[in-house]
This record gives sequence, structure tokens and C-alpha cells, in this order.
Amino acid sequence: MKYRAFVAILVIMLLSTAAPAEEGMWQLDKFDAELFARMQELGLELSQEEIFSPGGEGIAYAIVNLGGGTGSFVSDYGLILTNHHVAFGALQRASSEENNYIKDGFYADRSEVEIQAHGYEARVLISIEDVSDKVLKKAKGKKGAKRYEAIEDAVKKLTAEAEEGVDVRVTIASFFGGMQYKMFTYFTIKDVRLVYAPPASIGNYGGDIDNWMWPRHTGDFSFLRAYVAPDGSSADYSENNVPYEPAVHLPMSLEGVEKDDFTMIIGFPGATQRYRSAISTEWSQNWRFPGRVKLFGELLDIMNKAGEKDPGVKIKMARFDQMLNNSMKNYQGQMEGFQKAGLLEMKINEEKEFTEWVNADKKRKKKYGNVLPTISKLYEEQAAYRDKNVIGRFIGFMNQMTSASGTIYRWSLEKEKDDMDRQPAFMERSIPRLKRRLQMIDMGYDEGVDKQFLRHFILMSRDLPEVERIKGFDEMLAKYSGNDEEKVDALIEDLYAGTKLDNADERMRMFDLSNEELMKEGDTFIEFFAKLYPEVKEMEDLDDEFAGNISAVRPLLIEGMKEWKGGAFYPDANGTIRLTYGTVTGYSPADAVNYSCITRLGGAIEKNTGEEPFDCPEKLVKLWEKKDFGKYEHGCFVDVPVDFLSTCDITGGNSGSPIINGKGECIGAAFDGNWESISADYLFNAELNRCISVESRYILFVLDKFSGAYELLGELTIQ
Amino acid sequence: MKYRAFVAILVIMLLSTAAPAEEGMWQLDKFDAELFARMQELGLELSQEEIFSPGGEGIAYAIVNLGGGTGSFVSDYGLILTNHHVAFGALQRASSEENNYIKDGFYADRSEVEIQAHGYEARVLISIEDVSDKVLKKAKGKKGAKRYEAIEDAVKKLTAEAEEGVDVRVTIASFFGGMQYKMFTYFTIKDVRLVYAPPASIGNYGGDIDNWMWPRHTGDFSFLRAYVAPDGSSADYSENNVPYEPAVHLPMSLEGVEKDDFTMIIGFPGATQRYRSAISTEWSQNWRFPGRVKLFGELLDIMNKAGEKDPGVKIKMARFDQMLNNSMKNYQGQMEGFQKAGLLEMKINEEKEFTEWVNADKKRKKKYGNVLPTISKLYEEQAAYRDKNVIGRFIGFMNQMTSASGTIYRWSLEKEKDDMDRQPAFMERSIPRLKRRLQMIDMGYDEGVDKQFLRHFILMSRDLPEVERIKGFDEMLAKYSGNDEEKVDALIEDLYAGTKLDNADERMRMFDLSNEELMKEGDTFIEFFAKLYPEVKEMEDLDDEFAGNISAVRPLLIEGMKEWKGGAFYPDANGTIRLTYGTVTGYSPADAVNYSCITRLGGAIEKNTGEEPFDCPEKLVKLWEKKDFGKYEHGCFVDVPVDFLSTCDITGGNSGSPIINGKGECIGAAFDGNWESISADYLFNAELNRCISVESRYILFVLDKFSGAYELLGELTIQ
Repeated sequence: MKYRAFVAILVIMLLSTAAPAEEGMWQLDKFDAELFARMQELGLELSQEEIFSPGGEGIAYAIVNLGGGTGSFVSDYGLILTNHHVAFGALQRASSEENNYIKDGFYADRSEVEIQAHGYEARVLISIEDVSDKVLKKAKGKKGAKRYEAIEDAVKKLTAEAEEGVDVRVTIASFFGGMQYKMFTYFTIKDVRLVYAPPASIGNYGGDIDNWMWPRHTGDFSFLRAYVAPDGSSADYSENNVPYEPAVHLPMSLEGVEKDDFTMIIGFPGATQRYRSAISTEWSQNWRFPGRVKLFGELLDIMNKAGEKDPGVKIKMARFDQMLNNSMKNYQGQMEGFQKAGLLEMKINEEKEFTEWVNADKKRKKKYGNVLPTISKLYEEQAAYRDKNVIGRFIGFMNQMTSASGTIYRWSLEKEKDDMDRQPAFMERSIPRLKRRLQMIDMGYDEGVDKQFLRHFILMSRDLPEVERIKGFDEMLAKYSGNDEEKVDALIEDLYAGTKLDNADERMRMFDLSNEELMKEGDTFIEFFAKLYPEVKEMEDLDDEFAGNISAVRPLLIEGMKEWKGGAFYPDANGTIRLTYGTVTGYSPADAVNYSCITRLGGAIEKNTGEEPFDCPEKLVKLWEKKDFGKYEHGCFVDVPVDFLSTCDITGGNSGSPIINGKGECIGAAFDGNWESISADYLFNAELNRCISVESRYILFVLDKFSGAYELLGELTIQ
Repeated sequence: MKYRAFVAILVIMLLSTAAPAEEGMWQLDKFDAELFARMQELGLELSQEEIFSPGGEGIAYAIVNLGGGTGSFVSDYGLILTNHHVAFGALQRASSEENNYIKDGFYADRSEVEIQAHGYEARVLISIEDVSDKVLKKAKGKKGAKRYEAIEDAVKKLTAEAEEGVDVRVTIASFFGGMQYKMFTYFTIKDVRLVYAPPASIGNYGGDIDNWMWPRHTGDFSFLRAYVAPDGSSADYSENNVPYEPAVHLPMSLEGVEKDDFTMIIGFPGATQRYRSAISTEWSQNWRFPGRVKLFGELLDIMNKAGEKDPGVKIKMARFDQMLNNSMKNYQGQMEGFQKAGLLEMKINEEKEFTEWVNADKKRKKKYGNVLPTISKLYEEQAAYRDKNVIGRFIGFMNQMTSASGTIYRWSLEKEKDDMDRQPAFMERSIPRLKRRLQMIDMGYDEGVDKQFLRHFILMSRDLPEVERIKGFDEMLAKYSGNDEEKVDALIEDLYAGTKLDNADERMRMFDLSNEELMKEGDTFIEFFAKLYPEVKEMEDLDDEFAGNISAVRPLLIEGMKEWKGGAFYPDANGTIRLTYGTVTGYSPADAVNYSCITRLGGAIEKNTGEEPFDCPEKLVKLWEKKDFGKYEHGCFVDVPVDFLSTCDITGGNSGSPIINGKGECIGAAFDGNWESISADYLFNAELNRCISVESRYILFVLDKFSGAYELLGELTIQ
């Protein structure tokens, strides 16, 4: 395999650790026998059915999708183990200057004092079904937006049929760039509550400095609880709800891990691009990554300056801050990783060789000959509006008033259509979530910061060539006088002075209005979005056109590559449930430097400066000094293990996933990749890529010795 | 031993590497049998006589003192292996903008093209004799300056007697704080020439960034050659001179090193303070280190700014730049190391326990009871003029016009005395060196920078409390008007306008004048120094008083400590020849991080950015890419070894020392300690302190494959 051959060259410079690194995020419903044999060889003791079988009771049913993160049931009463950083939004929304659960941690020793995890829901997998034929039937022979719409229509119809009259939620996901479609049916739990979080000085120890780094000493875990109506059906938050009783839960291991142990992770990895073409890689390396790094840095700057002046703003912005910081570091790392690995050159060479192979055979040439040229052409066409697109994408994410007005305005248009004709985000089934988000805007909203975000995006448009600019901005600014910046400031003052969208009740009221009624309100931000909407729509149509066209060729590219290279193929991550396995293994990041695979509490104390993010709680220091490790001491050294490395292949979305030993016990929670794996979404490097997890014994040690969370400990199955 | 007990606590947090680290810089003429047995156990194959025996021919006779650094003979024709940074001054003095030997390296393929190593001499050990009784006879019962003078007189007399009529140079050094005195007789070679230096991109690869760091990839070696008169006597540089033929030279090993190999280093370590009292430690931690770091940073700033404007100035200042940078990093590291190790607290506790032990016995109380209080009192007295002293010490080092005028003025006074009554630096035997230095001032002199240095020191005095100020400055400034800085600038302009000392011929002419003649010259800088001289003398007298007093109590403290602790004791480093041994061993600098003991060329390529100091020469990169390693490949991996760690106990002065295997072969040149050993001058930490050497195979590889220095290679004994 050429892909691997390149990796081999790459690592010649490094100490070979001879680790059996196992690339791949495998589908649960299509488990390869060879793969399974390899897992057994490494230490798996479970049968395939004990992991997952359709309609069965494998451990995969203990895994829950938390929307952007993963968790796992660890008790009979709906207790969910996940990451501190996955539960962070809930912690932040529950925190105030008086009750700072981020700083101090949180523990509910009984049900009544648990706090609603605003904005969280937990989805439990019920079934997986291949629906490729049904989805692609009407798309055959179509192109561009037509093709896109045919697929979208089929997906919407199949989803509606499956959800009709049943208390489930259905997701249809595409695999191998659109070669395959599968329907995932979930039971959705809408009442999720906070049970336990350590203080940030444990749960986020090392903060942004240690983010993506090894050696790591972060106790990145928390516990949530899932609640349902007394009759077992899915229900919004209510005092009458009762803990959800999962069919399966994972026991927590008191044995933890040692070097070379078998590990596997089941979770919901978000997105990888392992089969991308050279042109897509070039876009990422030279445009997408540097652009995002710059933008996020500027937005973080705005937040930091505001946060320094006012701690209340700092708390409100904490989640955005964490997300942007994390993403920025991620993009930086990917740029570095791409360059270090020479990924682009590799892709170019690979495509050259692939093209030679294609052209060497008449039949192949007919089938695959047009694929790469078509992809290149599609990207070239998209280049004309890509910068404008970035503004459109991020303004609605960062500027809360644009987000609110956009949701309300679009809904006022969409509600007039039949459900099946609406954009997926505005179909009946999505409305409750839409309303919940609209309600919660206040929790991350500060008017001063919001204004500055808006100002930033309008000025970004101003800096584009005239033909690429957002015309709506230009038109709105025309009525003001002064220089560009004065005009923008004047527009923004008017916008915020004339809107009621900063009031949750007003937002909810306007949400229910018809478009006609809404436009009579005279709300400045509604008018602002209405003015922009034709351009938004135009960009979305272009995106659909691109998506439809690319979905016709990407599967062909992947099919061709598969035919060319041979061997086992797994689809890119797409937010659906996957299994990855490996072993507990260190690595060598540089000549003469070797990283061990397990860190210890003593290492956290070594890093302790007393100042954030290395502000080890004094109680933890005392426990360590007294060697009060209880039964959580590692067998190989006199200390508590904290974090560990494994060769499992994960990505964003896997955060909070249980990491599981050969017996099916939870040995920790996965929470990060190492710096060297930051470009793994594009290229997996077996020698260097590692997953970082917090060890089960550290979780239990902190619950027991540090927090005295005995009720929670009593509920866990510890073995 | 309590000393070790503390170390043990310190390292509990770290992965124990179970390394047999061997503290101690041992005297060659007093070799302990137990020590020798331990060396044999680790892999030494030589007999004691093969290392050193008085009048014999052990390998120690191949070691040469290069004044602030060490070297070793590696051929029958006076070829000396040392560090690139030890030969750096000679390289710099030989370099110009056209012939930049620092940047490009240097190789003389035959005798005629070798370049004089200005300012260098090589001393070869002839004999060692214990002269304690003779030195201390007249000091008995004396105190303060009287005691100091008695010892100085005895040393001068013994030295003169020993040197009389013989072509040798004698140094009498004190051991254990003045408990013991030994006479070292050397043959001094005054004609030293440059033979080979790699480009700085090999010899100083990593520069200041990697200085003190591991993993390291620096080829820190060069070759010099020693010349003598045709009759074998010591002679100044002359075309008629012939290569010196040493009695012993070291073969270069082609086997190099592997993990756990035995190693020993023979060299001239400068100074350690392992037996210092708490008050001395406190001075270093809270006054000396931070003060030096601040001062050196400011002086470097002056040089850097000037060097940025003018590359010629940069080359001239390169040696000062390197020295100050190195010292600053050293002091910073020591501060860090002191604090991390809690050295001061340890010393305080140790002295408390020692005092309890002393007080527990009447006889002990009588002998040692006054020692610590006396030392404290002496330090307190010195505190009153310590800041002033710093100015006096460094102005003469950094400001070349003060240095020149000081030398000439003092010599004009000293020359009127009998040789034996002069200060040691002005005795007949020292005059040639004094003249050489005076001659060479131009090579590191830039008027603009020199003025700024002077300005800096005068302003330092201005910032002291009035009573501590240098009165001479205040008096000279009184005749100028304006604010302080304007006055200083005006004084400096006058000083440089009215001096001829920037001309070497003028300096040499004035050097020969009597004091009366000199003062008639009307040279502004001579008058400047004459004005300052009474205060200089006063400070020196105070220093003598302090030295005399402290030399009466320090030996008692060490004797007491030795009696209290038991076990083997070695004296602090004092610039005399020492042997240290150990093994090739890595270490763990932090939890989960393990350093291997050998780096490879591939690691240098990894660090290559193309920009200084990581600007790997293209030819080296090519050799690596082609795997053109020849016979220099390491047996355990497909690459050339570059640097390696050993547990040998070294310090400044050891730079350039040969590191030797159990068979007496040279396996490299020691050139640095790791960051963790930066406070080892005060406290040796067996788990963390490591010596860094460049491996013999890298030296040979660079000579052969990179430089094609076949003549040089042919001259070496390679086995």
C-alpha cells in the first residue's frame, strides 16, 4: 500500500517503537473477520455479539451521542461518563460569579440537587440500516443542485417515515463520499442533568497550554444523568421525570491499564478527510487553515480584552473561548502536520500514479478518467465565493443577534411550506431544538462583545474585492457618513438600539409570527437579516450545486482508489458510531526523546505553579504528599495513574468516549489526541498518532479521595 | 549521608533510571583504592599507572590546559582536540568579513596554512607536589590581610624557586578552602595554531537555544596544534618553530559509545562550591545570580543593537556575546536549579544539624563552634561594598579602554617594586601574557560599543546609595553640566577624544614607561584610571582581608563536615587537573519523558530550519539522505551518532576535555552539561546531572565525509 509506504519513509528519522498501531474507524454493523481476529490477537476477550449485534445487547448500546461529543452509561440509573470539556457548556450555563462550578467543580449527592444541563441531549442507538438504494434511486443520472435535491428529498422522506408515530430520532448518513447511505435510529433523551464535575484545576489542568500535548495530567471527566418521563418516553426537563434505565452499562475498571494492554473506543467521531483529493488538500493547507487561524485569533482577542475588564463577560464567553482556542490550535497543528508530512506532495504524487493506473486500462479510463478533472473544476468554481462564504458561516455562529434573527426570519419563511419541502434544519422534528437554542442565547451573550464580532465580520467583507463583497452590508452602510469604520460603528449602534432580540421572551414571541407579521415588527435585526437573505440563499444554492456535483464523483474516486490499492477500507468519520482499537503505547516525538504511555499524579505536582492553568488544588497536592492513593495506586509505580496513550484512531466527536479493555470494562474516557496526530484527520501516522485518555483509577481516585463523592461511587459498577 | 538523602527525596517524582551516577572530581595524585575498584567494576581496563603516575607516562599527560578550557593531544605532532567553543576566540580573531571562519569553518591541510591562535597557550602537566606545610607555615596564628599576605608571599616564593632557571610554569592551588596546597608544574606552549574547525552550523549547531539542552546535535570540536622552538623549548610564535611532540597522545575510537559504557574525563574543571555555607548560598541565590543576569542582559542588549547595524561589530563582539550569553543562561539556570532543589533550605537545615552535632561535644565545640558565626560575620561586612565591587570587576573586563589603562597604570607602579613584592599578575613571569593581552585588545574592540559599556557602568554607580558609589566617577562628573546622563556622555566623549590607547603601538609604548613618564603623557584614560586607583586599591585590600579571614575558617568548616558526615571527600574544583568517571546513561527530565543517551545525525536534520542556529549545511543533509555514513555508523541504528550523555561530573573549564573509554581511547570531547545540572556547581544530583559530549565517530565523520580533511585524519591514531 503506497499510503503506508510513505508513512514508513516519514518515520525513518524517529526511533521505531514497533507499536502495532491500528488505523481505522470501523463500522459496527460491518465487522471484518480478519479485523476481529487481529483484535483478539491484541487481547480482546469479548465475542463480536458482546460488542454489537443488531437488536442485541452488546456494549455498544451503552454508548450515547451527546451532540459533538460522546458519553457512556456507567450505572443502571442513566449515569453518563463523559469529558469535562464535553459537559463544559452545561457547567458554564449553570455557573455564576457566586456559584462558579467551572472553578470549584460540582457534585450533586442526590437527585434533587442535580442541575439541568442546558442545551444537552443524549441519543441512544437503537438500530442501523443500509438505505443506499432507497436514497440514490432518484438521484441516478442527475447533476448539480438537482442531484443534491433528489438525495435530500429521499433522505427527508425516509426519515419522516421512520420517525412517524415512534419515539425515535433518525439520522441518515453518507459513507465513502456518497457511495453508501445508512439510517441510524436513536432514542433521544432530552432531559440531561449535571451530576459531577471536578474543578477546572483538575478537569482542565494544563488548559490551553497542555491542550493537544503529552505528557498530560488532565482529569478530563464529568458525570451527567439521563432522565425520561415516568412511562419511559422521551420528555423535556420536568421534575416528574425519572432516571433513564439503559439496557447496558459499562463497569468501571479498578485495574486500569498497563503498557501494551489492548484498548478499544466506541464513539461518534465527527469528520475525517482521509480520501480527499490533492486540490482539497491544497485548499485546506493554503487557504482554509491559515484563514481560520487568523480569524479565530482576532475573535479571541476581542473576547480576551472584554473578559479582562469584566469577569462576568469572561464566564459568559468561556465556552466560545474554549472552542475557538481549541480549533485554532487544531488548525495550527494541522498546518504544521501537513507541512512536516509533505501531505500535499504525497497527494499529488498519489493522484499522478492513480491517473497512470486509470489510463493504463480502457475500461478503467472510461469509469474513472473524468473524476479528478471534475473535482478540480468544481473547486475552481467554488473559489470565487469562498471568502464570502466564511463570513456567512461564522457571523451566524459568533454574532448572537445575527444568529437569532436568522433563525426567526428563516423559520417565518419555512413554516409556510409543507414539512417535507423545508430545509432539514426547519422541519417539524427540528423545531424543539431550534427553540431551545433560541431560548439559551443569553447564556453566551454580551452586547459589547456581540457588537465587536459583528463589526469584525462587516470589516472582513469590506476588505474583499468589490465583486466578492456582501452587497447587503454595502447597501446598509451607504446611508451613513464618515470613513468606513465610522459607518460600520453607526450601523451597529442603530442595529442594537432597534432590536428586541436580546430578550428571550421577545425572541420566542417573534418565533411564532408569520413572515408578514414579523416584518411589521420593525425590528432592526430582523430587517438586517431580511436584507442579507437573498445573498444567503444564493450562496446556499451554490453550495447545493457543489455538493450535488461532488457527491457524484467522490464515491467514484474512493472506489477507484480502493480498486487500485486493495486491502481493507473504512469510511471517513461522519458522526456515526464507530469502533477503533489499539494498545497502550508510548512514542518518540523527536530524536532521543521517548514518551512513556502513562502519566502519574506526581507529574501533575511537578507542573504545579499555583497559577492557572497549572494550579493544582492544594488538597490534591496533600493527598500526593501523604501517598494517600488508596486502592487506586498503579501496580508498577507508587503513584496514581492520571492519563495514558493508546494507538486508537479517534477524532473530534470521540471526546468523552469510553475507552474499554479486552473484557469490556471502562478503563477511562478518551479526551484528546497528541500534537503529532493533529493532522490525522487527513493522514494517519501509525508511529506518531496517539489518543489521550484519562485513566479509570484517576477518575475513581478523584471521586473518592478528593471529592468524597461516595453516593456516585456507590452507584458505579467497579470491578 | 544527608546530602544524598535530600537528593533521594528530590527525585521521588521522577522515573528512577537506576543509573550509577558517580559524583566527584577526583585528584589524580591521591587515588582512592575503593574508587578505583568501582571504576573497574564499571568497565575500566587500565591500571592506575596507565592513567597517572608521578613521573610516569599515563594518559593524563596527554591532557592540556588551554586556559579556561581543556584539550588533549591526539597525534605525535602536537595536534590538540578541543571544543569549537574553546577555540572560538582564535577563530574569531582570525576571521574577517571576507574570511569568515566562524561561518565557513577552517581547515589547514598543511603546516604553512595553519593560523596563529591568538591569545592561546597550552600547558602540559609535568608534576604535582603537596606544599601545604610550606605555604601555611608563616600564616599560622595570623588573621585577615596579614594571613592573606603570609600565604601569598609563601606561594610567590615557592613559585619563583620552582620556576627559576627551568622552562616551566608553576601554579600553587588551594584545596578544601585552604586546608591543603599543591604545586602543579607545567610546560607552557606559547605557539598554538588553528588546524581545523567545522562551520558554526555544525560546531555551534543549535546556538544559544540548544545551549545546556538535551537532546543536542552539536559538533562542538576543533583541532589546534602546539609548536615549540626547534630545540624543544617553549617559544613565542615563530615560523621556525616545530610541532611539539607529546610523550603521550590519545587514540581516537572508531567504536564510540553505547548505552551503559564506562566513561572517564580528565580535565581542568574551574570552580565548584559544593561545600559552601548557607550564607554564601543565600548571597548567590538572592544577589549574585539575579544581579549578573540583569547586568549581562543589559550588556548583551548593547552589543546586539550595535551588531544589527554593523556585521563587522557583530564579528568583533562574537566572543563577548557568546561568553555573556552562556554565563547568563548559566546563572538563570542556577537560580532555577537552586529554587527547584530548595538548596538554600537544605543548607540551612544542614548547618542546623551540624551545629547541634558540634555543640553536643565539648572538644568539637571548641574546634568548630565559631566557624559558622565567623563566616556569617565576614559576609555581612563584605555586603557594604559588594555592589561597588561588581562594577569594579566587570568594567575592567568589558570596557577595553579601562582594561588597557588599568594594566598600563598598575604596571607602572608595580614595576618599581621587587618582583617578589608585586601583585602576582604583575610578576616577571606574567608580563609576557600581560603584553600579549594588551596587544590583542583591538580584536574585540569597537569604540561605539566600548563607550556604551563605560556609560552603563558609570550609571550603575550613580544608581547606588551615595556612600557606596565610586567617588572617582562623581568627582570627574562634577565639572560637567546638565542632567546625570548628559554629564556622563560629556565625560565619555572627552575620555575617548583624549586617549591613544586604542592604538596597539601606543599601548605597547606606554607599557614600557615609568609611572612618572606615563603621567606626563596626559592620556585621558590613564588619568581616568589613576583617579580611580585609590578606590580600586581600597577594595582590593578589603578583598584580601576577607580572603585571609575566610581562608582561616573554611577549611575548618569542611573538616568539621567531613568528620560529621564520614565517607569519601573530594575537593571543590579549582582549575587543577581532575578525573571524573561514570557511564553512558540517559535520564528522565519530567514525568513520562525519557531521554535516550545518544543522538543521531537524523535528529540534527529534524531540527533543521535552514535558519541560524538550526541551519544544517546542505552537504550534511545530503550525506544523511544518502545514508553515506561510511564506517562511522552506530552499531545499534542506521545513522551516525552525534552527541551522548554520561554521568561524569564536570563543570566549566572541562570544556574540550577528552572523554575516554575503559581502554584509554578518546571517545569524544565533553562540551556541556544538561539544563538540570546547571546548579551542579553547588549540588550534584545523581539522577539528573549529565555531561554532554560529541562522539568520536561524529568528529571523524565530519572530518572525512563533510570536510574531506584527509591529512588530519591520516595524522590521528584511529582504532
